[in-house]
Amino acid sequence: MSTLIRDVDVRNYRVPLPKVLCDAKHGTHTHFEIVTVTVRLADGSTGTGYTYTGGRGGQSIATLIELDLAPGLVGKDAADIEGIYDWMEWHLHYVGRGGIVAFATSAVDIALWDAKAKREGLPLWKLVGGDSPECNAYYGGIDLAYTLDELVDSIKQRLDLGFQGVKIKVGQPTLAQDLERVEAIRNLVGPDIRFMVDANYSMSVEGAIEAAKAFRAYDLMWFEEPTLPDLYHAYARIGRESGMPLAMGENLHTLHEFGYAFEQANLSFIQPDASNCGGITSWLRVAEMSKAHDIPVCSHGMHELHVSLVASQPHGGWMEWHSFPIDEYSTLPITLRDGKAVASDEPGIGVAFDWKKLKPYLASQKVISEPS
Amino acid sequence: MSTLIRDVDVRNYRVPLPKVLCDAKHGTHTHFEIVTVTVRLADGSTGTGYTYTGGRGGQSIATLIELDLAPGLVGKDAADIEGIYDWMEWHLHYVGRGGIVAFATSAVDIALWDAKAKREGLPLWKLVGGDSPECNAYYGGIDLAYTLDELVDSIKQRLDLGFQGVKIKVGQPTLAQDLERVEAIRNLVGPDIRFMVDANYSMSVEGAIEAAKAFRAYDLMWFEEPTLPDLYHAYARIGRESGMPLAMGENLHTLHEFGYAFEQANLSFIQPDASNCGGITSWLRVAEMSKAHDIPVCSHGMHELHVSLVASQPHGGWMEWHSFPIDEYSTLPITLRDGKAVASDEPGIGVAFDWKKLKPYLASQKVISEPS
Repeated sequence: MSTLIRDVDVRNYRVPLPKVLCDAKHGTHTHFEIVTVTVRLADGSTGTGYTYTGGRGGQSIATLIELDLAPGLVGKDAADIEGIYDWMEWHLHYVGRGGIVAFATSAVDIALWDAKAKREGLPLWKLVGGDSPECNAYYGGIDLAYTLDELVDSIKQRLDLGFQGVKIKVGQPTLAQDLERVEAIRNLVGPDIRFMVDANYSMSVEGAIEAAKAFRAYDLMWFEEPTLPDLYHAYARIGRESGMPLAMGENLHTLHEFGYAFEQANLSFIQPDASNCGGITSWLRVAEMSKAHDIPVCSHGMHELHVSLVASQPHGGWMEWHSFPIDEYSTLPITLRDGKAVASDEPGIGVAFDWKKLKPYLASQKVISEPS
Repeated sequence: MSTLIRDVDVRNYRVPLPKVLCDAKHGTHTHFEIVTVTVRLADGSTGTGYTYTGGRGGQSIATLIELDLAPGLVGKDAADIEGIYDWMEWHLHYVGRGGIVAFATSAVDIALWDAKAKREGLPLWKLVGGDSPECNAYYGGIDLAYTLDELVDSIKQRLDLGFQGVKIKVGQPTLAQDLERVEAIRNLVGPDIRFMVDANYSMSVEGAIEAAKAFRAYDLMWFEEPTLPDLYHAYARIGRESGMPLAMGENLHTLHEFGYAFEQANLSFIQPDASNCGGITSWLRVAEMSKAHDIPVCSHGMHELHVSLVASQPHGGWMEWHSFPIDEYSTLPITLRDGKAVASDEPGIGVAFDWKKLKPYLASQKVISEPS
């Protein structure tokens, strides 16, 4: 069969960031990691998927793919994406259900979708939904450590690029400091630009309720991850007591966790990240759940891929244009046109890595061609 | 300070099983993996912790400890177990909250407790609770693929050793086959031996209710993991509609997940595994939650360590004597006396690896002495 997987090329890249970035709970980011997976099929065609981290865990993800997934993938039919998705889930269930395993299986799943889209000669946005090649996009800053001047400059730059939405980090030592920044940015962007804040789950439930009430004066589109993502019922309480729309998703790694969020957290927006929720297969299932709950499906991170997913869905919401510039290492365009992000029309997932540009950051590479 | 961590020795062992073992969802086990972590302190003293897997993910766990935990541990105070526990949680939060990260942090946490117990000259059971050096123990078979004759022989052998409780796997193709085995074992052991079954979450909710109702005729102490561990509310329904006591815990990797189980699943027994729930620190917190919910705290796996934990607690329940013979690679005794498991009285966690015996199975070793 021409779509049997012949070998799997697994790489980990540690890419330095041009500026050290900081948020409330992950601390400083000096690098981000990209773990790529390229499957080569019997007919010679290939598909490449990937995941990314904020600088920790990348080699563990790569090791898991090399040793515990790739040997089982060799010889499987790449066209059977659902079958491989299920196999990966049960094969690694004991050490899985989230975390590193979710990142690893996501990268493999995305590679299979890339191969399929290329085989069918379709861009991802057409293959998985086809609603539109473009979607709303906002710039998501990792800017907690910026001075107020740096913050304002950073947002100004994004307005100049045409962004119609911007998000900043909150979680300063005092709420007054957060409010000073929120007020400065609302004054800068004016009333028509969408504006969101993100606490990276740094607040207590009580603190989040107090902050959310205070944020209401600034017409925010959402308050993201006010508190721990595990506290689904607390999210509902924060939303109820403050009247503030809430968003989360980047820290939900299984469909069960998304189920708890939809059923218990009373969110206004959901933000699955295909790089850590189980790939495109999972992202599309979350999009279905989202539709059933009448919530716009948004995204977190890796905008160069999510543009195709968010754009494809009739209930697609706002895509985050993330501060990790993975797109700068792709040869395919993601452009901002009249404030909307536009997906590539090339067959595939819309991301084709510039391997030469990535090469200096290669931390490991292994090609697996022996089945288990 | 004499308790500063000077270096961290991380090893992964792949140990072949004497017999291939099988359960309903993890498939066949030909090996198990032991990932060991030895911290050496400034005063020259050491502590060793570990985690284990059913044969997959071990190298990924070891890699994570080597690259993303050990460099940050070097120079930290080993006596500050809570501080290191919190640091590990937030340091790896983005790729964590369960899975591989939970296994990795567990191994480190156990090493710190071993060092502490040795420093204080106390066996673990005295250090963490002190209720008793011994606890109830049952043999947990991984025997789904055994013929009925093999199953009966296997249980007979354990009765001869003095076990007062036995557990078998269920999840055969038909309920009639499961019932045949359950009946054979109840007839074999008689009315006084405690008897449990474990489906390794292989059943649908409806199937589990039907099975649980049928199992009631055999006076089982519990029905373990009838369905997916993520379906907390479904557990409550299975218990309610069948009247069968339920148990789970080996697949809960965060305190939040244990919280969901206590609040939603209406369990009769909880089975945290210190090797994958966040170490001894987490196990003790689960034991506290368990006490507050009036549920006996039991354990899953690595009996050579859990004997000290279950025995230490006034509400300690039944400890699983697991089919992975990790204890055979320890020089300290865990003995069965009058049907009770007896913990070592040596200072430390009660597990001292026989490195020479393990040596043939060493898959990787790295000693990290440079701080990050």
